[in-house]
Formats: sequence, structure tokens, C-alpha cells
Amino acid sequence: MSDPQSAEGRQTLGDVGEFGVINALRSRLTGSPLLDVGPGDDAAVLRVPDGRVVVTTDTLIDRVHFRTDWAGPYDIGRRAAATSLADISAMGATATGLLVALSAPATQELDWTMKLAQGISDEADLVGAAVVGGDLTRAPTVAVTVTAMGDLAGRSPVLRSGARPYDIVAIAGRLGWAEAGLAVLARGFNSPRALVNAYRHPEPPYDRGPAAAQAGATAMADVSDGLLGDLSHIARASGVVAHLESDLFEVADPLAAVAAAYGTDPMIWILTGGQDHALVATFDRGQPLPEGFYAVGHIEPQDESKASDRVLVDGAVFSAGPGYRHF
Amino acid sequence: MSDPQSAEGRQTLGDVGEFGVINALRSRLTGSPLLDVGPGDDAAVLRVPDGRVVVTTDTLIDRVHFRTDWAGPYDIGRRAAATSLADISAMGATATGLLVALSAPATQELDWTMKLAQGISDEADLVGAAVVGGDLTRAPTVAVTVTAMGDLAGRSPVLRSGARPYDIVAIAGRLGWAEAGLAVLARGFNSPRALVNAYRHPEPPYDRGPAAAQAGATAMADVSDGLLGDLSHIARASGVVAHLESDLFEVADPLAAVAAAYGTDPMIWILTGGQDHALVATFDRGQPLPEGFYAVGHIEPQDESKASDRVLVDGAVFSAGPGYRHF
Repeated sequence: MSDPQSAEGRQTLGDVGEFGVINALRSRLTGSPLLDVGPGDDAAVLRVPDGRVVVTTDTLIDRVHFRTDWAGPYDIGRRAAATSLADISAMGATATGLLVALSAPATQELDWTMKLAQGISDEADLVGAAVVGGDLTRAPTVAVTVTAMGDLAGRSPVLRSGARPYDIVAIAGRLGWAEAGLAVLARGFNSPRALVNAYRHPEPPYDRGPAAAQAGATAMADVSDGLLGDLSHIARASGVVAHLESDLFEVADPLAAVAAAYGTDPMIWILTGGQDHALVATFDRGQPLPEGFYAVGHIEPQDESKASDRVLVDGAVFSAGPGYRHF
Repeated sequence: MSDPQSAEGRQTLGDVGEFGVINALRSRLTGSPLLDVGPGDDAAVLRVPDGRVVVTTDTLIDRVHFRTDWAGPYDIGRRAAATSLADISAMGATATGLLVALSAPATQELDWTMKLAQGISDEADLVGAAVVGGDLTRAPTVAVTVTAMGDLAGRSPVLRSGARPYDIVAIAGRLGWAEAGLAVLARGFNSPRALVNAYRHPEPPYDRGPAAAQAGATAMADVSDGLLGDLSHIARASGVVAHLESDLFEVADPLAAVAAAYGTDPMIWILTGGQDHALVATFDRGQPLPEGFYAVGHIEPQDESKASDRVLVDGAVFSAGPGYRHF
């Protein structure tokens, strides 16, 4: 370990050393009444009131999922946490804890890392979850893997496979805002702020997941690959076809304005943008939708002759492709 | 997605596509009676009989934690799983599930990835844990983050902070074998096989963790940074000093032979080698050690005038440094 005080006062991870960084990060964490053993031992111990733990893991990689010139470390931290927390919500569960595995070069600034950790911790606070542990490793590229744990509070998990013919397809949260914000940034602009901020960190409707489960949602998914992509996963898992009606989607003012300026159809962002982490769920058509959800279509039985068409928009296959593919 | 059949029959992740790879990997997984919802939804649901889940996460990075020219994908997978599974054991718990986040370039071969997954799955099988979910992302470097979950079956977790003066310090498992194997490989040799294999994948004494907890271990840690490093964590957390006696360590034949050939003291490998994932634990001196543990020293009260000396070997500070530091 070298001297922790560099001349510039801009210490790097290499300056402070693995355990110095871990101690600095740990000092920022808030606890949870469910946490029996927190960070600092071989593993954490988290109480699971329901007797079943809901678990998911997601990795964000520099220049694949974020660009450090378009989003600061705090926002990247919030996004990294949101990506996993939204998956917990999409099962109908409430997140209780996060594990964070951070990989970074030794030249990465400690200050950058602390802001990233603060973003993760603040996003976890939104749902009452605690950062319960983590891992810090040297690597050529910055990567953040967040594992989230959640509790079902006695509810059944809402799976992708439960959608039934004639169910209503409904959305909670924003669609297309982050994608439009990315389009704005890619052209070198910084406004509309609302869209740029939506790209910098999503605002998933976390509490709508448990609310949907309580209201009897038959299927649910987090919109992370774009609505067409994620709804097609529900349709395939359920053996049904989803029909969306484009005039049921609200096109918010900033989306409409930017789409008009760029000569683009805002429905492309709404149907294929994946970074807002909205929830898509199906509900029995005979009952009112839970607060915060709005209907955008319905489910029909599978037509065996066209088994590959899982999601139709106004009765046809939408042409702009189903979401981001990693490979 | 491009054509899944490349001319050479050596398909890459880019050839098969994200969901193709995930489906191929999923087909190899074995389940668990504790798994309510397995891979394929937004999150997995794992039953937690004890009502507390033990959780830990660790990342292995190409050229930091492994070298693809010295270990094949199957062994890297086993090592990646072992790193997290050993942490669960060191809390006195039994692992129940794993989440695997894999990052790799699009040019990585599918076959390589399948063998890595098989290694992870086989290592999990050793303890009866299931791979319950994961994430696959494109990245410039291969990285594997394994999150493990475990169950305490009603036992108290064994922390690092519980060692008391006059407790016995004991070890289960091998020390220094992987480090000696690495020394062999670094000189371009492939034997002794036992050491090279120990480097390629560790054999942590998984069931000795719960056994130690049942026998009343007062503190325990997984030896991942080297015995001096990990025992110093126990000593610091417990406010005590650990005294090791070098003649209580068995120097196994292959270690002795290689050390003699290289003109090295094998105690350096034994005291600082971290990749075997042995367990170090402390026990009340008034009772027999559980099967598989052997005594290597004892605990003494902290001498306030020498607070920084946490681990002494034959009464002195060992000179070869305390384990691997990431920064």
C-alpha cells in the first residue's frame, strides 16, 4: 500500500488499498432491522420473515450499460441498484438487502467510488433495503454487479407464465423516457432535463410490484429489454399473444417534443426503450386495475399458425425490433 | 443475431445470442427441493428453512484471479463457485443456492462458457446447492461474480469477532497447496499434479464449517487472503492476538519436495497462500476439536503496547506479508 495522501488530494483505489476502500465504503452504509450480521464478515446474515427469499443479480459494465461521460458515479450507482431492485418488485416482493460486487482499475478515484456507493445506498433506501455486503476487485474495466434480495410477505410470486387470454395488459411507470434521454445526449444536448435525468437514473415504480401482486396480477415483468421484448417473454412463457393498442399509450410532452424535433416516432422509444424499469403486468379484465397502472392492451389465445408473433401492436408486428440483445 | 452454426462448429456467444446462451446454460442446471422459482423469471424464489439467509458475493476476473492458459473453463467455474461457497461454510452455514453473473466478450466460445457453467454447477452439487439464476452481459474481459446463499439450520452464525484469550486456533483443509501449484505453473511445469490440481480448483472442507459451528467454534473465517491475513482479521475483530506454532503445521510431501527443489521455505506458502479456502477457527481449549480440524496455535490477550501485531509465528512477526491485496 502506498501513501494514502496523494499530492492532488485525489486519491485512487490503489492509493488507499483494498481494505481502506472497503472501510470507507462501509462507513456510508445504513442498516436494516432485518440485518443480523452486516458487512465485514465472510458473509452477511439477513432475516427472511416470509421464509422464502427472492433473489436476482445484474451487472452493469462501463461502455456497455453506462458511459462515464454521460452519467456521474452517483447516478450510475443509483441505476445499478435500480436494475436489481426493479426485478424484485416485478416478482411482487419488497427488497430487503443488496450485495455489491465492484470491479475497478487501481487508478479509479476513491471519490468516484464513494459517490457510486452513495448512489447505490440511496436507491436502496427508497425501498428500505440495506447494503448487506460486497466485494471489491481490481479489473481493467469498471463493472458493478448488484444482487438484490426481497421478501414476499406471504404473497405468491408473480411469474411471467401466468397471463391468460382476455387479461388486461397494464403498465406502471414511465416508458421511453430514458431512451429519449439517451438520444438527446447522443446528439450532444443536455435538455429536456426530464429526459436526460431519466436516462441518468431510472425511477422504477417499486411499490407497484407488491401492489399488483396484492391486486391479483396474473403475470408481471420489469421492462428492462423494452416493452416488446419483455412482454414477449410473458407471452411466450404463458403460451399467449399480447395485443397492444398504440392509442392507449400516453406520449408525455417532452417525448412528443423531442420526437418532433428529431423527426422520430416516439412510439419506438416507448415500445423498445428498456432503461426506465417500468412494470408490465396482466390482470383479470373483470376487476379494476390497481392505482398507478394503466391499460395498454389485452391478451389473446395463441394462434398456432403464427406462433412466433408474441406481441402485436394495433394488430401487426411492430417493425423496430424487440429490445437490446447483449450478444 | 447471426447464424448459430458457424463454419468451424466453434460457436461464440455472439453467434448464439444472449437468450440462446442463457437457454443452453439453463439446460445444464440441476434443481433443489428448496427452489420455488428457478432461472427464467425476473428473480428466483428460494426457500429459507431457518428464517435467516446467509449471503456473500465474490468476483473472479481474467488475469487477476485466473489465467485461461493455466486453468480451463471447467476449473475456473469450480473455483468461482468454491470462492463463494467457502464463505457460506465459514459462517457455519450450508449453501443452498447460487446466482451467477457472467461477463464475457462476444467472441468467447459457447463451449468455453458451457464448461464454465458445468464447473459452477458441479461445485454447487458437492454441497447440495442449486444455481437459481444469473445474468449474462457483454464485456471486454471475462468476469464471473458468484453470489451464494446459505442456511444456518438454527445455529448461530460463527463470526470473526468471537475469539477469546486461550482459545485454540485450528485449521480444516489444505494450506499452501494452490500457492505451490501456482509456483510450479509459473516455472512452466505441470507436476506435481496434486499441487497443480489444487491451484486449478480448490477443495474447501465445506462440511467442516457447519461441524465447527455445532462444536461451538468461537470464531471462524475462510482462508482466502492467506492464513496470516485472515487470522489477523479474526484477531483484530476479536481484540486479541493469535499465536501460531510452526511445528504444528504438517508440511505435506509434495509441498516439501517442491520447496526443496526451488530452495523455498514451504511455510511461506502455508502461511500466505490464499486459494485453498481452508477454514481457520477458534475453539474453547477445554474441549476436543471437531473431526477434520488440527490445532496450529492459540489466542492470547492483546498487548496494548503492540496493538498492530495481530498474528505471531513462534512468537515473532512472520516476514513474508499478509496475503494478497487487490489495491
